[in-house]
Amino acid sequence: MDLNCDMGESFGDYCLGCDDEVIRYITSANLACGFHASDPQVMDRTVRLCAENGVAVGAHPGYPDLRGFGRRNLDSTPDEVRSDVLYQTGALAGIAKAHGVALQHVKPHGALYNTAAAHPATARAIAEAVAAYDPGLILVTLAGPAGETFRSIAAEMGLTVASEAFADRAYTAEGRLVPRGTQGAVIHDPEVVAARCVRMATEGVVESIDGKRVELKADTICVHGDNPSAVALVKALGHALTQAGVELKAMGRAA
Amino acid sequence: MDLNCDMGESFGDYCLGCDDEVIRYITSANLACGFHASDPQVMDRTVRLCAENGVAVGAHPGYPDLRGFGRRNLDSTPDEVRSDVLYQTGALAGIAKAHGVALQHVKPHGALYNTAAAHPATARAIAEAVAAYDPGLILVTLAGPAGETFRSIAAEMGLTVASEAFADRAYTAEGRLVPRGTQGAVIHDPEVVAARCVRMATEGVVESIDGKRVELKADTICVHGDNPSAVALVKALGHALTQAGVELKAMGRAA
Amino acid sequence: MDLNCDMGESFGDYCLGCDDEVIRYITSANLACGFHASDPQVMDRTVRLCAENGVAVGAHPGYPDLRGFGRRNLDSTPDEVRSDVLYQTGALAGIAKAHGVALQHVKPHGALYNTAAAHPATARAIAEAVAAYDPGLILVTLAGPAGETFRSIAAEMGLTVASEAFADRAYTAEGRLVPRGTQGAVIHDPEVVAARCVRMATEGVVESIDGKRVELKADTICVHGDNPSAVALVKALGHALTQAGVELKAMGRAA
Amino acid sequence: MDLNCDMGESFGDYCLGCDDEVIRYITSANLACGFHASDPQVMDRTVRLCAENGVAVGAHPGYPDLRGFGRRNLDSTPDEVRSDVLYQTGALAGIAKAHGVALQHVKPHGALYNTAAAHPATARAIAEAVAAYDPGLILVTLAGPAGETFRSIAAEMGLTVASEAFADRAYTAEGRLVPRGTQGAVIHDPEVVAARCVRMATEGVVESIDGKRVELKADTICVHGDNPSAVALVKALGHALTQAGVELKAMGRAA
Repeated sequence: MDLNCDMGESFGDYCLGCDDEVIRYITSANLACGFHASDPQVMDRTVRLCAENGVAVGAHPGYPDLRGFGRRNLDSTPDEVRSDVLYQTGALAGIAKAHGVALQHVKPHGALYNTAAAHPATARAIAEAVAAYDPGLILVTLAGPAGETFRSIAAEMGLTVASEAFADRAYTAEGRLVPRGTQGAVIHDPEVVAARCVRMATEGVVESIDGKRVELKADTICVHGDNPSAVALVKALGHALTQAGVELKAMGRAA
Repeated sequence: MDLNCDMGESFGDYCLGCDDEVIRYITSANLACGFHASDPQVMDRTVRLCAENGVAVGAHPGYPDLRGFGRRNLDSTPDEVRSDVLYQTGALAGIAKAHGVALQHVKPHGALYNTAAAHPATARAIAEAVAAYDPGLILVTLAGPAGETFRSIAAEMGLTVASEAFADRAYTAEGRLVPRGTQGAVIHDPEVVAARCVRMATEGVVESIDGKRVELKADTICVHGDNPSAVALVKALGHALTQAGVELKAMGRAA
Repeated sequence: MDLNCDMGESFGDYCLGCDDEVIRYITSANLACGFHASDPQVMDRTVRLCAENGVAVGAHPGYPDLRGFGRRNLDSTPDEVRSDVLYQTGALAGIAKAHGVALQHVKPHGALYNTAAAHPATARAIAEAVAAYDPGLILVTLAGPAGETFRSIAAEMGLTVASEAFADRAYTAEGRLVPRGTQGAVIHDPEVVAARCVRMATEGVVESIDGKRVELKADTICVHGDNPSAVALVKALGHALTQAGVELKAMGRAA
Repeated sequence: MDLNCDMGESFGDYCLGCDDEVIRYITSANLACGFHASDPQVMDRTVRLCAENGVAVGAHPGYPDLRGFGRRNLDSTPDEVRSDVLYQTGALAGIAKAHGVALQHVKPHGALYNTAAAHPATARAIAEAVAAYDPGLILVTLAGPAGETFRSIAAEMGLTVASEAFADRAYTAEGRLVPRGTQGAVIHDPEVVAARCVRMATEGVVESIDGKRVELKADTICVHGDNPSAVALVKALGHALTQAGVELKAMGRAA
């Protein structure tokens, strides 16, 4: 199983995240590319950090909205999305190349990720950008039915797709994320989180918020490194997976 | 001889330049990369235009200053310059890759270009970025003594360097550009411009503003496409060079 | 009747609009405030131009989206909208104060204008900003039923509201704008435009796209200054209104 | 004596400073205006915080360089500086007006502050902006000879000027700041800082880094609120000043 984490979200003097800590426990990193967070120097530092820790690097393109951290939807045309994703992916790849690092994957960020799941034209624009840039890149999409359209669009273009589950988020009986703000949407108990992830990794199953058994095929599990307790959770999660005999490795590495 | 022109300087609804016209008469294009001008869609359109017209594409990175069009010096550290150039070059290369186009060269823009000539640490930062990204890229520098330091720094790193002369600018007896604002600094007569460029291309010589013979080795001549009369001048210049038996071809193409 | 026009939409080296021309024929100007267009120097120049021509100045706040010219919807919270409108209005008022000019009105721009019409929380946020800044400012809203909610929200806060019609746009039988892209949505014939505006000004009536008589109370008519033919249309329109005995004066000037 | 502190330097999700803490111990706050830091919502929150704590509000305009936090010099023309300061001051005043707060002062930030001290045309541009916006605003300049030119330019325009000393910085025998990076440039011992400030406030004297007695007239002392230990220092400093019989009050309040 792959553990991925958003990283490199600082900007200038503004620091976010515990990248130096969480890097030790993850296998893939999604690096912001300067549109919703990060700047060229932060990207440079973060690629180096990944390289030193043997963590695979992916692009994490977002809407051009630093102030809103890419979480606000921006009504963009498919052509805007396509060229914005190409730009951001190329920019990160340029910096990565200077470290001898090739990109492993692309995972859209925030509002762009959600819009891609709901809006086929946006999904297609992202997939086209990835396919045009490098069809060997893995495109990360939502696990479960929410990511299905995006996945089939990407697969039709010949892209390799990874399905992403969230370590600390509750799922509905349909395998969709329970919206933030709903009671119980975010799971805080590290042991519960770990047990759920082990089950996802070994059985491909998660228990829904209303107690149902839900099949959820996940190729990668998203974790957070925003604060020390988040990092502690990732560490515990990694330990639990290993204990359960699950090999931790980047999504792009052959079994 | 190569004729290069800055292109793709529009931004959103804001249009600049006569790219569709001047593209017919040049052999290399320097594309703005979103910091001092351009945006991902403009870059996409401009790369396509170059590809359709067989014009070689180069990155034209600048300071992050859209409002000042990259013409205002920004006190950046070498590390900022290095990562900014990598970012911009990678971003353009990403978009170019989607068109099956590989970058030919990198030419710093505006204040960054001038600072690189005057400030070895900035020159080194740019050269490092280019060498780290792709040592096969040609780095464009000022022809004559003003570009000498930059050229030797780049050459030490194993980069191929091209020297750039300006079609419509007067030179001092030392082979330096006469500063804008000085009487006679810009030459407006198309015939004079053409004759000077033919002499540069065939003899490697230009007459200085005070009537001296100056040796000026130029691998590429910079022209402008800002307005219809600029385009007419480029057309006339290309014709004059061809008439004089000078082959027009991109700087990266073998003789 | 007031004729208003969006002005001051240039940015840095990027020029838009024929401000120097259209200023001669209008009575109110909506000045971009640096978020979707303009910069402090453009604002300064445009306020001076208005002052010299006796044209009333209003703020034209938009979403922070220079690349999209404020035409793309950005999912902003009401608090973001409120503080963004305060910021932009204050910024323009600061520059206007240096010219001894007081603002007359606020007219939201582009996607923000449309969202305000459709989304009461956004309308309320804008009205709150205007009321908090200066309850003497006139808030410009869409004439007809589309602006009704916005108008009543503003009126409840004690604001003076102006209803805006569009000189060159067709209306439905309900008094709503025919969406751009629909056949006949934009009227190009200057004589037809002038005749329609005269009827609006003298009878408070417009003929709908399907030939119906529609009552449309307009306090100000929006015209364009994007290009020479737009300016010619404004000139003709002003002449026709004057000929018809309609006094042209800024919306804030007493009858 | 007035204690001033830079505040409101967060941006979007990016948090900087311990504003909620330091506000309790200062009398004037310099609020970033969205160019080098802050955004409209942060400005709104910070003005409210100042109002609730009875702290006077001033504008802290900087170069348009969020990534460099306004610390990098940007070669701006005087006209750019003038209109940028007007824009930022007006924007903050707009938000402050919504809280019933009038601005007390303007203090340029970072590289703009330093350039104003070294470059009369920049100093004049800032002073012109302040005088044009509201000649009742106090302009804050460097205490000692470094601020002399700026002060006399401002005074000639009829502006009230305040001289600012730095609580934790060493001075040369000439009354200039010892450059950061020099051994001993920053004083860390809270008791030493407090004793120095008491002496400044009561005697108008500071001991230079080489042990000389230097007269330094200060109307306000700059403190920091970046981290908990900085806040503790401010608290101790305020206590020491009060103990020494120095009344703490905002620079704009009559004695």
